[in-house]
Parts: sequence; structure tokens; C-alpha cells
Amino acid sequence: MVSDDLFADPPEDTQEEILQAAFEVLQEQGYSGLSIQRIANKVGLQKASIYHHYSDKDDLLLSFVDHILDRMESDLIRTADVSPKTQLESILDSLLLDERASTSAVEISPPSDDLLRVFIQIRAQATHNSDYQDRIAAIDERHEEHLAAIIQRGIDAGEFRNVDPNQVATALNTFILGSFSQRATRTQVSLEPVHKSIYSYLENSVYV
Amino acid sequence: MVSDDLFADPPEDTQEEILQAAFEVLQEQGYSGLSIQRIANKVGLQKASIYHHYSDKDDLLLSFVDHILDRMESDLIRTADVSPKTQLESILDSLLLDERASTSAVEISPPSDDLLRVFIQIRAQATHNSDYQDRIAAIDERHEEHLAAIIQRGIDAGEFRNVDPNQVATALNTFILGSFSQRATRTQVSLEPVHKSIYSYLENSVYV
Repeated sequence: MVSDDLFADPPEDTQEEILQAAFEVLQEQGYSGLSIQRIANKVGLQKASIYHHYSDKDDLLLSFVDHILDRMESDLIRTADVSPKTQLESILDSLLLDERASTSAVEISPPSDDLLRVFIQIRAQATHNSDYQDRIAAIDERHEEHLAAIIQRGIDAGEFRNVDPNQVATALNTFILGSFSQRATRTQVSLEPVHKSIYSYLENSVYV
Repeated sequence: MVSDDLFADPPEDTQEEILQAAFEVLQEQGYSGLSIQRIANKVGLQKASIYHHYSDKDDLLLSFVDHILDRMESDLIRTADVSPKTQLESILDSLLLDERASTSAVEISPPSDDLLRVFIQIRAQATHNSDYQDRIAAIDERHEEHLAAIIQRGIDAGEFRNVDPNQVATALNTFILGSFSQRATRTQVSLEPVHKSIYSYLENSVYV
């Protein structure tokens, strides 16, 4: 979903270079320490050049969220041709376990701690800013729709019980969000107990 | 846990008056708009009077978190003499459903949307500030210990299976956190599907 290798490749253009600099400033200073000046210093541009691409720091951060969304989409497409159960478990393994699950049949890049910390900070802006609320809702809806589609596919294939796909998808997404928040705001937290419980839920309430 | 009527009573002293003003500024401006000056204006004090009680805005916010923790404790004590199952479901009903569950045998004040929004903003500071990380970890650990104690009581009473109390408690706390984040960052989100799924988990994986 949220990919680790977001900026693994060299930036393709100035816009991506600016987003990468914003990501670094966010990691070091947090949202309240993020300014166009600091981004400009980091990337070695004049402030005016940043304003040529983005109207203000919120516009820039919302573009960052879109950038994450685009990467997420390409990750999802890569997992479309395995069984629904394998697909679901690959997503949960990569998102909840610190290390990439070695048994996973599908390779999804787990999000780095740095990316999760930035994601939680951006998400917190949605508590009092309606522009952020709309984008955050779009992210959640896209995740929920994707999870619901996997669950529907599992029902059709006879692997899953006749559950309500949207209900299960919303619950899984809430669980993933809580796990991200735990990882991003506590040091040395292990998500293994959480991972075990969600597998217990799937075994006893979702799988045939 | 996090109580709605945090500031329902008139503040008892200047410190509580300052915390209440900080809560109001946080609701209106978010963390990045919070300043000692704005709090002073709101409460009708000089900045120096605020600094007499709190060294800076982070010290003030961390005291706010402690204030919430104290209130939480008193809520928990009030629920100690019902059956483990009833106690667990009362907590989940009040935290996850928008309205206080009318069937709930125990009265726990559900957290208001305003309080959840402020809580999510404060929590986000822990992504890059170790003082916040320590307090947030203390909150989570207290919640998890309390939930684990209820689950252990349920096992002892023969109401619950022989599950690992800490594992289930960590999972429930992660779920609650994800639900809080959903409620605080999306408008018009219903947690009913989430509530149904957690009950399904309890019925099929925890209860005897």
C-alpha cells in the first residue's frame, strides 16, 4: 500500500525533488517545523522556485499524499493474480510485520518507519483541515475498496464465508491504521501480537 | 478511557483553566497554531502567568495528556464490579459507537469528537519528539494492562478461552486506536462495521 521505496530511485524532475526534500524535512522537524524556506534550503532552490510548483506547504504535502497513492496503486496491481487468501495475507504480512514475510508469495514493499511517521503527521492535519480530510478519506476509501474486492473474490472462489465484504474491509483497514499509528508513535513496539490476533479473526470469522 | 466530560465542570484552579484554554485553541487551530500567546489571550492571563505553570507549550500539552490519564483511571475504577464480558463490551460500545450504547450495563462516557481530534494531534507529535513518545507509550501500556486484566478475569471466570491476555489486549487497543484515528480524521464515518467485526472476533476467537 504505502511503499518503502518511495524515493529509492533518483527524483525524475524538480517536483519530485521538492517532494523528497519535504519528506526529509518532515522526518527531521515534524509538520510544525516544515516551512517552504527549509525545503528550499534542503533542495538548493530559491523559495520562488518552490512556489512555482506549489501554492503553499499544505498544497505541497497533499501532493506528497497523491504521490504515495500513485505508488500504492502500482503495488496493488502487482498482487492481482494470486489466490484471494494469499493476496490478503501478503498485504497484512508486509504491512504489520517489521520484516518482509519470507513465506509471502507476493512481494509488497513494507512501509519504512520514516514513511509511517510522516504519514501519521500528515493524517493528523485532517483533524482540523478539510482539504486534508478529503484526501485522507480518498486514501481510506481506496484501501477499503481494494480490500473489499479481494474479500468478494474470496467469497466467489469459495475460500471465504459469505461475509459482508465492506464490513470486513473497513475493520481490516482500521486495524492497519491503528498498527501504523502504534509503529509510528512508540519506540520498539512489536506488532506480532496484533498480527496473530488478526489471523485468528480471519481463521475463525472469515475463512471457510 | 478518554472521557467526554473532561472539562464539563468549571476549572478548579488556574492550571486547569490553562489546560481548558489549550484544549480550545487546539480544536480551533491545531497543534501548529497553538502558542502560549493564544492560550494567554483565551484565558485572559499574561504570558508570564502561563510560564509560571508550564515551561513551554509541549510541557503544557504533556500535562494535558496526564490530565486525560487521571480522568481515564477514575472511569476504569467505576467499571470494576461487573462480569468481564460486560465490562469489555461496555468499553468497546462506548469507545466505538457514536452514541452511548443503551444496552450497556456500565456507564462510560464516550469521548467527544473534539477530544479525539486533539488526542490524535498530540499523539502525532510522538513521531518526532521523544518526550511525547514516553507519555504515549505510558497511555498505551496502561490501556493494554487494563484490558489484559479484564481478559485474565474472564479466563479465570470461565467466560473466555485460554487466550494470551496480553496478545488480545494489544490487538484490541490497536483496533481502538485505529477507530479513534478514523473518527478524528474523516467526516461522517460510521464505526458500526468496525464494531460488528470486533464482536465477531470476540465471539469466535475469545469467548467460550
